[in-house]
Amino acid sequence: MYSKLAESYKNTTYKLDGHGARDMKVLKNAFDSVDSNTRADAYGKGAVINDFEAKMAHMLGKEKAVFFPSGTMAQQIALRMWCDEEEIHQVAYHPLCHLELYEEDGLKVLHPIESVLLGEKDRVLTLKDLMALDTDISTLVIELPQRGIGGQCPTWDELNAILDYCKKKVIKTHLDGARLWEVSPYYDKSLSDICAGFDSVYVSFYKGLGGIAGAILAGPDAFMEKSKVWKRRYGGDLISLYPYIVSAAYYLDQRLDKMPLYYEQAKVLAGYYNRMKSVYTVPEIPVSNMFHVYFHKDAEQVVHAIVQVMDKYNVGITPYIIENKDQDCMFEMAVGDAYQDIPKETLEACLLELDTILST
Amino acid sequence: MYSKLAESYKNTTYKLDGHGARDMKVLKNAFDSVDSNTRADAYGKGAVINDFEAKMAHMLGKEKAVFFPSGTMAQQIALRMWCDEEEIHQVAYHPLCHLELYEEDGLKVLHPIESVLLGEKDRVLTLKDLMALDTDISTLVIELPQRGIGGQCPTWDELNAILDYCKKKVIKTHLDGARLWEVSPYYDKSLSDICAGFDSVYVSFYKGLGGIAGAILAGPDAFMEKSKVWKRRYGGDLISLYPYIVSAAYYLDQRLDKMPLYYEQAKVLAGYYNRMKSVYTVPEIPVSNMFHVYFHKDAEQVVHAIVQVMDKYNVGITPYIIENKDQDCMFEMAVGDAYQDIPKETLEACLLELDTILST
Repeated sequence: MYSKLAESYKNTTYKLDGHGARDMKVLKNAFDSVDSNTRADAYGKGAVINDFEAKMAHMLGKEKAVFFPSGTMAQQIALRMWCDEEEIHQVAYHPLCHLELYEEDGLKVLHPIESVLLGEKDRVLTLKDLMALDTDISTLVIELPQRGIGGQCPTWDELNAILDYCKKKVIKTHLDGARLWEVSPYYDKSLSDICAGFDSVYVSFYKGLGGIAGAILAGPDAFMEKSKVWKRRYGGDLISLYPYIVSAAYYLDQRLDKMPLYYEQAKVLAGYYNRMKSVYTVPEIPVSNMFHVYFHKDAEQVVHAIVQVMDKYNVGITPYIIENKDQDCMFEMAVGDAYQDIPKETLEACLLELDTILST
Repeated sequence: MYSKLAESYKNTTYKLDGHGARDMKVLKNAFDSVDSNTRADAYGKGAVINDFEAKMAHMLGKEKAVFFPSGTMAQQIALRMWCDEEEIHQVAYHPLCHLELYEEDGLKVLHPIESVLLGEKDRVLTLKDLMALDTDISTLVIELPQRGIGGQCPTWDELNAILDYCKKKVIKTHLDGARLWEVSPYYDKSLSDICAGFDSVYVSFYKGLGGIAGAILAGPDAFMEKSKVWKRRYGGDLISLYPYIVSAAYYLDQRLDKMPLYYEQAKVLAGYYNRMKSVYTVPEIPVSNMFHVYFHKDAEQVVHAIVQVMDKYNVGITPYIIENKDQDCMFEMAVGDAYQDIPKETLEACLLELDTILST
């Protein structure tokens, strides 16, 4: 059943989500305009890496930025350094934090660090959650937007109240900005304004921006210098990271300015879903380019219906469905370049028919 | 003085070492023949990574191989897994081992592992060193060739005596094969023959092969499956590693068969140096494409002489000199594609004049 869904999605010309296939033209396009004689970076040195790091430090409003192969590596290292500095080896984050769910407990296995899960799985963490915390932590991690709940965010005031509270209590704050670009239009703030209250920040280049891989960690100068030692320790100080850096820079240029467009279109698309009888989105009104689509139907029925309309209208809705609680199932949606290509009437007819099939 | 040396080297048309400049045509050449529609790997899955891993497992004669961003990451992980399996958190290696010198103590900081330095800094480790060891170790690391001493190797018989002894004593053996391709012609053995006695092996793609970065760790099936968990823990399980994999595969195809040529030419070049009055190489007769060049002169005099002949003959001898003990200095040499381009008479005249200048 699920392989049929993936196959049907793959065969469609139009896709609702993403920037198109993750294939090698992503790299080729990024390098087409690059001079062959451009020097490679060598162990963190060279214009190709240092210029991009300087650009990112400026964009995020931090003293220094360092390019890492992955956010997993960058964030574990940031937390270890804050824990060492504060001499408290405990950090707090949302129960659906990447560090807790997708890193095989690297933070706890590679470091003497414990995690405290703050707030509830189905909502953003709040100042109230933080104030109720009855143990010492060196660092609070905030993910903006919180991917596991469809990319929700605290309000700007709530966010700043949390950050102010942390400053008062001498708790370091780290921003998991894996999808930070995507949420800037909602807050209607610059990236550096959003980052200003945080002690350190990580951003990613292959999600909303559609690069190949890679991450930036940014923060105070001495902190970032020390992060290079940890990067080497982890085996992340590759002789050359330029394949990721050049593509990161390229797709940042291509897509950063499109974030408001993706955001607006995500709201429109979520509106279509919410008008369907047995479908709802989380959040109801997206605050970024992403949201989760839930069905009050069992997965088999949903897959059958989606395959039927994808095959008929040539529109890829989703390649997968995750079974949730009983008789509920869901998938994640993130608007990118691919959405722009779909004729609006085709999309509307496709989703209308999906609604009809699911309602019978 | 040293910047003048680097500058002079950079300006030469011919280079004695390497495969030419580390610039972005290294990537562009590798990708020129790749179909744009080739799917990217995704978190360790997909034909581009899995096919290459299978090819490498076969070439190295191991059950399974896993592609890593770096050897630093791969080797720390291999040693941690062997230590856990043997329940002995101590490993032994040569004093000039990469793990000891260039990894900011990652092995000891990220893991509960101690190192035992075996043998002496200026020679390969021997069976006798190992037999004199008076503490328990889970694993012995052997680097073939031993880079820190000009790429020396134990004889085939000594190597096998060491491996047999380890088997008897239930000590795991790990091969640091950062330059393994380079030493296969000397042993006159296939890669899988050399690897056969080792429990695990790491190989690199950017040294003798001249790729961009990346490493393979190979070993038993269950061991390698477990290594993927650690790879994720380290933040090395990037969404896509294909920029390194495609280039690794490309330069493997281009250069693996040239290793005997590089080896023969290294012996010829070392011969030139050893005929010079105040110069000698380590080893005297190379056993791979590499060797170290030592001068019984102070560095200033050597740099001055080298710059003089590099400028005159347009041949890059070395971009750097390291001061060794009193009145001695050295540089490392590794023969690659660049050597092929130098007119033999130019090279001979250049080194003859260097000898003359150094002798006055």
